[in-house]
Amino acid sequence: MVARTGGAARRVVLHEVGPRDGLQVEKTVVPSERKLAWVAASSAAGIDAVQVGSFVHPEKVPQMADTDELFRRLTAPGAPRAGHAVLTGLVLNEKGLDRALACGVEMVCLGVSASETHSRKNTGMGVAEATERIVATARRAVEAGRRVQVSVQSAFGCGFEGAVDEERVLAIARAYVEAGLLTISLADTAGHAHPSQVERLYGRLLALHPGIEPACHFHDTYGAGMANVFAALRSGCVTVESSFGGLGGCPFTKVAAGNVATEDVVHVLQREGLRRDVDLAALIGLARDVSAFFARELPGRVHRTGPVPQLARSAEGAPA
Amino acid sequence: MVARTGGAARRVVLHEVGPRDGLQVEKTVVPSERKLAWVAASSAAGIDAVQVGSFVHPEKVPQMADTDELFRRLTAPGAPRAGHAVLTGLVLNEKGLDRALACGVEMVCLGVSASETHSRKNTGMGVAEATERIVATARRAVEAGRRVQVSVQSAFGCGFEGAVDEERVLAIARAYVEAGLLTISLADTAGHAHPSQVERLYGRLLALHPGIEPACHFHDTYGAGMANVFAALRSGCVTVESSFGGLGGCPFTKVAAGNVATEDVVHVLQREGLRRDVDLAALIGLARDVSAFFARELPGRVHRTGPVPQLARSAEGAPA
Repeated sequence: MVARTGGAARRVVLHEVGPRDGLQVEKTVVPSERKLAWVAASSAAGIDAVQVGSFVHPEKVPQMADTDELFRRLTAPGAPRAGHAVLTGLVLNEKGLDRALACGVEMVCLGVSASETHSRKNTGMGVAEATERIVATARRAVEAGRRVQVSVQSAFGCGFEGAVDEERVLAIARAYVEAGLLTISLADTAGHAHPSQVERLYGRLLALHPGIEPACHFHDTYGAGMANVFAALRSGCVTVESSFGGLGGCPFTKVAAGNVATEDVVHVLQREGLRRDVDLAALIGLARDVSAFFARELPGRVHRTGPVPQLARSAEGAPA
Repeated sequence: MVARTGGAARRVVLHEVGPRDGLQVEKTVVPSERKLAWVAASSAAGIDAVQVGSFVHPEKVPQMADTDELFRRLTAPGAPRAGHAVLTGLVLNEKGLDRALACGVEMVCLGVSASETHSRKNTGMGVAEATERIVATARRAVEAGRRVQVSVQSAFGCGFEGAVDEERVLAIARAYVEAGLLTISLADTAGHAHPSQVERLYGRLLALHPGIEPACHFHDTYGAGMANVFAALRSGCVTVESSFGGLGGCPFTKVAAGNVATEDVVHVLQREGLRRDVDLAALIGLARDVSAFFARELPGRVHRTGPVPQLARSAEGAPA
């Protein structure tokens, strides 16, 4: 993954998952042109990776039916490309990988849920079988020359099962590491995570292998999303997955709010002196456009309030 | 202040400021009976201190006009008193202290803004003069036998001035310490704080005197409120000020959202194993009642989603 570095010592990589995780629960299908504009705006603003869509069956999630077309248009020779974001796509199975390889996905994202119930509802398979299948599919993506990120979903708790044993999370992570898959995201699908748990689990994850490149994915169901992001960053996490405006949720868990809002994450990182290269004003404009499209208020804060005054001035003024 | 301890090593004291900071910007005046019910519910749920109101001039903030009456009724001999919360009141000047001493306030809260502009708009005085006056008033409250908490408002940034020099914050804190006032709250009135700033400033505050009992007060204007609460707790802060439902804002700054939501704070603390003695279900009911009274959605999360399943079960089941 493109590893931009902030002005300060800490490295934070930003992965926008709004076009996939944000949109997948929305009933109103977003026209492809609008999705392309959102991906381009995110990339042009300096976001490092953008998840364009999911290779789920179109009948299951009609919102994702144009994923292949979006990638083809974004990666066509001569296609105008704003920014340098890596274009990522969520792959659920072998068939999805076939589609992903055929249409130009740059980073293949795959995951297994650590919750038996969530895994069965989501994939029809238990955790052990799902892990085996996903590892095999991920290996095939690597062999096809693609970057790969593997994730553990429901890593901090499950809307169906409640607490999820950390050993279950680490067992999946070990299977990834043994297969040479070191870009690993822990996803708080239901929003159950709390800071000390986050610190402990990233500590244990990083102890598995020195080459692990960890990512985090927090839903803000219970208001602890941003506290968890900072707990993850403090614990050695590098990549933060977030969604424009805080849009989203998971259709397969009982209660889930959207991800932490991208522009809120960037705002507080910039207050910290990090990622001043990212165009916050553009991200605010993007979140407002998404909010306007769905004609409702989104959970993110900064796209409603605007940035704190100094940041507004610096955004208007000189570049990064 | 009543110092309840959580199940784990870390001590966290909860100070509900909704009846004051939450209500003061609301145009619809809440009947005294309803305010009394909210204070009682908060106290009965196990909150350690409740800020009942502000001794501001009734014409300036009509919502606070019944503050003296509320205290009289809450502290009258034979008055039924649910819970053990310390009843606190915000005092702005000498006249306010006279009122507070006359009506039974148990802890007097006073503050100075570290922002010259905010101070002048709020009090008509510059920071130096306001500090001198507030220290003298606080000393008089101590001599009258009351507990006292002093605060620095706009400690992390100002809606008018932008960045606030930490030296200005520490100069006010030093004046407090020299006057023997060691219960010190740093208030992020405008919501500008970010975690590394919070850690640095609490570190510097605590270095002033070994006896300091620090409190924090974060508005969630830009979505970093809960991350800042955890940064403060990690840095030695003991008391967290919060508002039911996340209600509130400051009428004297340009942009300000409500405080972090009390029930969201308690929820994540309980996930951390702390403050399991507090009745989260009761706090959720309280926030829902406040939301119903104002007939609008409040920014807090947990009163809308309910707690994560395990917590719901433990709240229904055995006591702390």
